[in-house]
Amino acid sequence: MKAAIIGGTGYGSVELIRLIQKHPYLEVGSVVSNSKAGFSFSETYPHLSKIMDQPLETFDAKRLSETNDITFLATPSGVSSKLVPQLLEHGMKCIDLSGDFRLRSGAEYETWYNHTPADGQYLEKAIYGLSEMYSEKIKTANLIANPGCYPTASSLGLIPILKSKLADKNSIIIDAKSGVSGAGRGLSLTAHYAEINENFKAYKLGKHQHIPEIEQVLTDESGNSITVSFTTHLVPMTRGIMCTMYVNLKEKISTKKVIDIYKQFYQDSHFIRVRPEGTLPSTKEVSGSNYCDIGLHVDERTNRLTIISVIDNLVKGAAGQAIQNLNLMNGWDEQTGLIDIPMYP
Amino acid sequence: MKAAIIGGTGYGSVELIRLIQKHPYLEVGSVVSNSKAGFSFSETYPHLSKIMDQPLETFDAKRLSETNDITFLATPSGVSSKLVPQLLEHGMKCIDLSGDFRLRSGAEYETWYNHTPADGQYLEKAIYGLSEMYSEKIKTANLIANPGCYPTASSLGLIPILKSKLADKNSIIIDAKSGVSGAGRGLSLTAHYAEINENFKAYKLGKHQHIPEIEQVLTDESGNSITVSFTTHLVPMTRGIMCTMYVNLKEKISTKKVIDIYKQFYQDSHFIRVRPEGTLPSTKEVSGSNYCDIGLHVDERTNRLTIISVIDNLVKGAAGQAIQNLNLMNGWDEQTGLIDIPMYP
Amino acid sequence: MKAAIIGGTGYGSVELIRLIQKHPYLEVGSVVSNSKAGFSFSETYPHLSKIMDQPLETFDAKRLSETNDITFLATPSGVSSKLVPQLLEHGMKCIDLSGDFRLRSGAEYETWYNHTPADGQYLEKAIYGLSEMYSEKIKTANLIANPGCYPTASSLGLIPILKSKLADKNSIIIDAKSGVSGAGRGLSLTAHYAEINENFKAYKLGKHQHIPEIEQVLTDESGNSITVSFTTHLVPMTRGIMCTMYVNLKEKISTKKVIDIYKQFYQDSHFIRVRPEGTLPSTKEVSGSNYCDIGLHVDERTNRLTIISVIDNLVKGAAGQAIQNLNLMNGWDEQTGLIDIPMYP
Amino acid sequence: MKAAIIGGTGYGSVELIRLIQKHPYLEVGSVVSNSKAGFSFSETYPHLSKIMDQPLETFDAKRLSETNDITFLATPSGVSSKLVPQLLEHGMKCIDLSGDFRLRSGAEYETWYNHTPADGQYLEKAIYGLSEMYSEKIKTANLIANPGCYPTASSLGLIPILKSKLADKNSIIIDAKSGVSGAGRGLSLTAHYAEINENFKAYKLGKHQHIPEIEQVLTDESGNSITVSFTTHLVPMTRGIMCTMYVNLKEKISTKKVIDIYKQFYQDSHFIRVRPEGTLPSTKEVSGSNYCDIGLHVDERTNRLTIISVIDNLVKGAAGQAIQNLNLMNGWDEQTGLIDIPMYP
Repeated sequence: MKAAIIGGTGYGSVELIRLIQKHPYLEVGSVVSNSKAGFSFSETYPHLSKIMDQPLETFDAKRLSETNDITFLATPSGVSSKLVPQLLEHGMKCIDLSGDFRLRSGAEYETWYNHTPADGQYLEKAIYGLSEMYSEKIKTANLIANPGCYPTASSLGLIPILKSKLADKNSIIIDAKSGVSGAGRGLSLTAHYAEINENFKAYKLGKHQHIPEIEQVLTDESGNSITVSFTTHLVPMTRGIMCTMYVNLKEKISTKKVIDIYKQFYQDSHFIRVRPEGTLPSTKEVSGSNYCDIGLHVDERTNRLTIISVIDNLVKGAAGQAIQNLNLMNGWDEQTGLIDIPMYP
Repeated sequence: MKAAIIGGTGYGSVELIRLIQKHPYLEVGSVVSNSKAGFSFSETYPHLSKIMDQPLETFDAKRLSETNDITFLATPSGVSSKLVPQLLEHGMKCIDLSGDFRLRSGAEYETWYNHTPADGQYLEKAIYGLSEMYSEKIKTANLIANPGCYPTASSLGLIPILKSKLADKNSIIIDAKSGVSGAGRGLSLTAHYAEINENFKAYKLGKHQHIPEIEQVLTDESGNSITVSFTTHLVPMTRGIMCTMYVNLKEKISTKKVIDIYKQFYQDSHFIRVRPEGTLPSTKEVSGSNYCDIGLHVDERTNRLTIISVIDNLVKGAAGQAIQNLNLMNGWDEQTGLIDIPMYP
Repeated sequence: MKAAIIGGTGYGSVELIRLIQKHPYLEVGSVVSNSKAGFSFSETYPHLSKIMDQPLETFDAKRLSETNDITFLATPSGVSSKLVPQLLEHGMKCIDLSGDFRLRSGAEYETWYNHTPADGQYLEKAIYGLSEMYSEKIKTANLIANPGCYPTASSLGLIPILKSKLADKNSIIIDAKSGVSGAGRGLSLTAHYAEINENFKAYKLGKHQHIPEIEQVLTDESGNSITVSFTTHLVPMTRGIMCTMYVNLKEKISTKKVIDIYKQFYQDSHFIRVRPEGTLPSTKEVSGSNYCDIGLHVDERTNRLTIISVIDNLVKGAAGQAIQNLNLMNGWDEQTGLIDIPMYP
Repeated sequence: MKAAIIGGTGYGSVELIRLIQKHPYLEVGSVVSNSKAGFSFSETYPHLSKIMDQPLETFDAKRLSETNDITFLATPSGVSSKLVPQLLEHGMKCIDLSGDFRLRSGAEYETWYNHTPADGQYLEKAIYGLSEMYSEKIKTANLIANPGCYPTASSLGLIPILKSKLADKNSIIIDAKSGVSGAGRGLSLTAHYAEINENFKAYKLGKHQHIPEIEQVLTDESGNSITVSFTTHLVPMTRGIMCTMYVNLKEKISTKKVIDIYKQFYQDSHFIRVRPEGTLPSTKEVSGSNYCDIGLHVDERTNRLTIISVIDNLVKGAAGQAIQNLNLMNGWDEQTGLIDIPMYP
């Protein structure tokens, strides 16, 4: 099966290529980059010399559909909303790694993203690709809205306790930390080495576009309208996200029991690892892999649950989950090709 | 004035030396390190060649008191509780950078530190050296318990809102992040380069010995018994602490008004900088300096206040605040010698 | 085929496990760690939870030989010289990642390593596993001395120009830089985070144990006795080695021609990538992969050739080359299982 | 005395401000930034809140000369060549931190910098401000060409051995490594966090504009025409330069004797620290300070001298040496205000 990749020179594309190379049923067909069309991929990314020397292409839905079976879109906000309709029309299934199809409400999208939303009929068709939760719908989807990195880590960490009815739904606080690759390859002072190295900073307080996405999925899963406090921080490292989450518990319950709830909830989820009592995951422990590791601790003094969830933002938070969704769409084992164990150290 | 430094080869001592060199009325007298006595300081720390070539000494309260006017103790937990009484007996004023004299309750100390507490009469005498809050008491103290790094950042960030009576006292969550120098120079896997670099990890959940210290000062200042949730994380950087703190507000209030409360509260505090609306401090913006920068944001959707407080853990969180306290004890301007502005980048 | 790994809790072992998981014909049999025997591997390395939960074993050559087909030794200097004879006796083929069998002269080993050398008969049997140069001998070997990380990067960069007879053999200077994982997981001030981060340092000038190894292989390949200047530096990063090498040229020759010589020399070497004129490799461009990338530049003003060679010290510099050698020993394609392309960024 | 700073929002200016704050006889007068004129300095650099809140100004030589006594120019290449003549005309002494006045030959400048050179009369007037070597000329200069960061570290390391006549002048190789702050605050992929972190790369091989500057000063000092091989690398850290230098010795001499030569040569140079035998400096050991530390090692096997020289690129490599030169120009002790000892860790 051949995959087209749109948005060819960003980190999302590069990570897709890294993972596709290991997939037994998949290979890279076309890579589209309007800005660098004609150049070879390895000129932009010399680490792919002898691996991806093919020329970058311009976008042409018809031509892409003739030589590829599936399209991954790793484009900035506001782009895939325009390209996906053309691709679907030519019979291509699409997995969109951007935020353009994640929010069901076009109005919400416009508020948080400050772009024109996708046409409503496509927003309706799009299936939110949080693989562990929506595998049945994903199997028959033509258009996947691949979740954001923060929403993946947050919702996988929060859904079990919300579904357990033990949580005070008004008490949810998500303190999120991300490596800098999440900011992409576009130049900005925020990603300028000397500004970030030996520095830890908070950003976009109360304004991050992942807030409505998190609230949408938590509301869906809990059956209650959920509003969260969500703070994002930049860590001086390249890869990895940790969400430290706080939830007030409605009754006394031990850490051990909460862990049991999570273990049972995720018993069939290969990529979720719930840690034993007294141990907490770190971002390096999932680096390069599709795992989401979760640590849990009930503070008996405050009866508050702390949940720590870590992912590699470029794998489970982007390209890896996209492959996982592709596997589901094709009826393959969800692990197919996702064979990387964490790279440590 | 001559200062003795006990615990001579840790990072706390080195930072004291760096700051004392710039102080107009202070110089380093003796440096005590039982493990390296006889060696010159610059053999252990070659960056001090031609600056501190004097030999390290063994501990001898009498001899120290004859050649020094004040003692800084930068020793591991459980050590200064034994040395301070001897020094006081010889008429030396002491500033203890360890945790041995911070908790008024010896029993609490034993629970959290797992060491024998200092004698009760000394715990009573010790003045908690949070300079901005207790300057009057500090002026006449003979023994200062210099605050911990996390408690400094946390309490400076929380006290104004607690005193304002706007905060729900049961809702306080402190999500703290620290550079690795806080772990000291002692070897451990937790501070091993390849384990920390490109990694972000949580540690000591619910067990950190700074919890009772934070609760003691917040309880003192608010007049209410305060219990907090406190989570610590290790950031892959050397210096800097950020505390991101969450407090539920009892009534609607704008970010602007909260900022006004803080600005008024700290109007005479040179080393506290309250940031204007819409901007947030980062750790590098105080690096190497004695500043504590505070950013504030009210999330109108949840009516929750987010407070972001940053310090350099080795300066305002240790050696810098110790000098500030020494200045107060001597009736000097609290800024004396603390002339470093942040080193950026 | 089942592989035993000795030295189970070092970074070399962990990297072997990461790579073996992707190998179609190989799986991990026993992991030996005398210090942690009985504990599960994932207790020491939580990133391997659900992946390697088996208990660590003690060393027993007989038992290992019954359940495994091949042994990798990733032990400190002075250990495998004692274990390998027992393993060979039980019919096990061995690939030794330590330095114990690399030098043909036991006396040289003793001088540089300060350990008792292996028995001479085993030193004779051992084949130096620089895969690109000695594939024929490797195919029939029972004992492979897997090359050091610096010698791999250095010799792959220098051999083509030495064999071309264009180089002044007395002019070779190797300025080498390594990430900190090369120092292993053992605790030392040299690998203490706060000492290394934001620091660049030289170490072991003129004393590094890789010097005689480099000179041995360069002497073998050039047919001349070679003595090099070799300086090692520690870079504040986890993975990666760069060797910047300087060679005086005996006649005028263009960069382009030198590149042609290298391209021809390595035309059948899949894992060597010679860069086009005007581009230079960086360590991240091979990170996580078995590639060795080489950049070349002739300075016309001095008629000196600069060679830049980069590898991932844990892959091509250790575990990856070990797998490559195993492939050769079994008559498999040398790329088998080594499917990782560089992880970027 | 009041100092004007031109090029106000680069790292050079920020470092000048940091150092000037500690200088007893100097304060910041005007800060010029045409692109940000009217904005306050602390809006661009929040770490200077409450410290430098004054507005940035446009360039006006006359106005500047009325309110300032001296001008530091920390501008990109090709700018100060135009501004300095105007400033000199208004009677201002100038210290130029850019490369515009360092090369005596305008033609050389044009070749390496690709800008129009400064007018010849000014190139003649300019004194090269390598403080340790040219203090006499500096004392009476009106225009100082402050040395580049690499040339400072290189020439301070090489001059003593060149002057000793022990060195083979054709054998000089400089393998240089720099932190990323040297690239300035301008955005580029080369300084993009995710591209640099966990990466080590070489750049500008044979093309670095510091080559002719190094050769000019070495030629001046040795009395021979010197051509060097010079390679630059980027280290994943913010501050610090190390030059590892190789020189063939014309006769046998011990490390100890070479160290004696250096110690004698620099006996009156406060900021140069020659390390004892067997120890080597690291960049952190001079971080934040004006020191240049030098380590030496003779490899008896090759009779080649290795010289390791480290500086903080923003201090001794830029702003610190500029202050040192200002001190000399004013007849003050060269250490005046340069009181920072290295910040460690």
